[in-house]
Amino acid sequence: MHMLDKIAENFQEIHQSLIDNFYRYEQKEKIIVDKWEKESLGRGISAVVDCGRFFDKAGINFSQISGNSLPRSSVGSEGYKDAPYFATGVSVVFHPKNPNIPTAHLNVRYFATFNENNKINEDWFGGGFDLTPYVPFKEDCKSWHQQAKTASKNKYQEWKNNCDDYFYLKHRNEHRGVGGIFYEKQTFEKPEQGLGLSKSVAQSFLNGYSNILDKRKDLEFTERQKEFQIFRRGRYVEFNLLYDRGTLFGLQSGGRIESILMSLPSEVSWRYKFDQNLNSEEQNLYNLISKKHQWI
Amino acid sequence: MHMLDKIAENFQEIHQSLIDNFYRYEQKEKIIVDKWEKESLGRGISAVVDCGRFFDKAGINFSQISGNSLPRSSVGSEGYKDAPYFATGVSVVFHPKNPNIPTAHLNVRYFATFNENNKINEDWFGGGFDLTPYVPFKEDCKSWHQQAKTASKNKYQEWKNNCDDYFYLKHRNEHRGVGGIFYEKQTFEKPEQGLGLSKSVAQSFLNGYSNILDKRKDLEFTERQKEFQIFRRGRYVEFNLLYDRGTLFGLQSGGRIESILMSLPSEVSWRYKFDQNLNSEEQNLYNLISKKHQWI
Repeated sequence: MHMLDKIAENFQEIHQSLIDNFYRYEQKEKIIVDKWEKESLGRGISAVVDCGRFFDKAGINFSQISGNSLPRSSVGSEGYKDAPYFATGVSVVFHPKNPNIPTAHLNVRYFATFNENNKINEDWFGGGFDLTPYVPFKEDCKSWHQQAKTASKNKYQEWKNNCDDYFYLKHRNEHRGVGGIFYEKQTFEKPEQGLGLSKSVAQSFLNGYSNILDKRKDLEFTERQKEFQIFRRGRYVEFNLLYDRGTLFGLQSGGRIESILMSLPSEVSWRYKFDQNLNSEEQNLYNLISKKHQWI
Repeated sequence: MHMLDKIAENFQEIHQSLIDNFYRYEQKEKIIVDKWEKESLGRGISAVVDCGRFFDKAGINFSQISGNSLPRSSVGSEGYKDAPYFATGVSVVFHPKNPNIPTAHLNVRYFATFNENNKINEDWFGGGFDLTPYVPFKEDCKSWHQQAKTASKNKYQEWKNNCDDYFYLKHRNEHRGVGGIFYEKQTFEKPEQGLGLSKSVAQSFLNGYSNILDKRKDLEFTERQKEFQIFRRGRYVEFNLLYDRGTLFGLQSGGRIESILMSLPSEVSWRYKFDQNLNSEEQNLYNLISKKHQWI
């Protein structure tokens, strides 16, 4: 088997383990699994919940694509070079119904670019996960970051800072949530090492989010908490459409729109000056996202 | 009075006449009028309805701003030059509750850039309006374009084509709606001529949209029509955050966020593959927006 196919296969295994672990919370008939193929692009599997019993919206995507011209959004402003490329990875967004449970996002990916002789020129791994709470449970933020540290070891502080900087809405002067980790362009001698990192990041995400899910899933919530969640999801949409390189990469690479935009929630509202009259719980949430915090 | 203030005053009059004409449909206590000032930027008036009786969301904005560096989004890719600038204009978005009434948008604006001696270097007018229906009433599209032609006279065909090209979602391969007119960088010997155009465009918008409002406002609608409208509004958000230069100009110029994003509806949903199962009315709507049409 070609090395690149082998790498993709490893990501597909991560994809399946996430499905097995998270969709046990959801009613079976609400889970849509779509395999797709797109000519001159590649293939993927989208496992989506839309208006489920447990999730308002959720998507667990795997894809393996290639093209003649690497979209600029694949890396930050530094280090971009146009070339034929290969990309594979898993991306995950969960929007649970219950506002006591945060929205969570995970991405692990591998990129390779090729020279004229179709040999790999550069290749690297990237990824990360971040948490967007609606109710400010500080202990959840701490346990989440504990998992982030487990995955990233001595890189934790660097990747945690990256994450705070990346998931930031400049026009709102606020973070998307309480962060986690974010890393790009990690190179290894052997792909197994990069796959090892990707698996360990996915596992920490799984542990971290499962902890929170199990702790919060049976909590009652008020109508106001739901309204606040739906309002705050507008910020999630603003981030993804205005800033997120993953989303823009998907759109620029001609990807499958339904899979790329599965990150956008099923119920969102934009309200005029809604956040000028917050109650104390909501104000506490704003305190968490208005600046960087050192969680552990 | 300085010529620039005089121009701004004219736009403020347009703003007031739009408020007087459209907010008579709405309950008085639902209309919020906010005057704002922002240091080193300028001032404005936002007249907003959020979850009203007639409008789910509506905004009629006036602003007059200036700065040291013209944001790139102020004009298309051609003809951009950085310089100190002045900008004033009116922008309007209506999202009525009743899906039988389309969403409508109007913008009229004036720009000036200055040389080192603080003299006007270039100045120009821009503007346009477009219509985003949820129920395909072809006669409404025709009467709308009739008004567009009245405003733009012998420029109609050019500005209509501009509009079709501009309000286009590339990643969806569909137009935002059935268009109208869109023009940029119109220069005149005297500002009175540009103001005359702006007033006549605003008047045609007013006539065109009033016709539709009065014709459709008492029509009953089904739950499915409402659901479809809320789904389609997701495309409106996608356009504004991914492509709209007016929105990006506002964000890049450090404008008042609540005024810029008043264009985003109060209720929106992203659903997975929702538009793969359309009924015949909805399919007819898709036929209207999937390609350019010659309406008159």
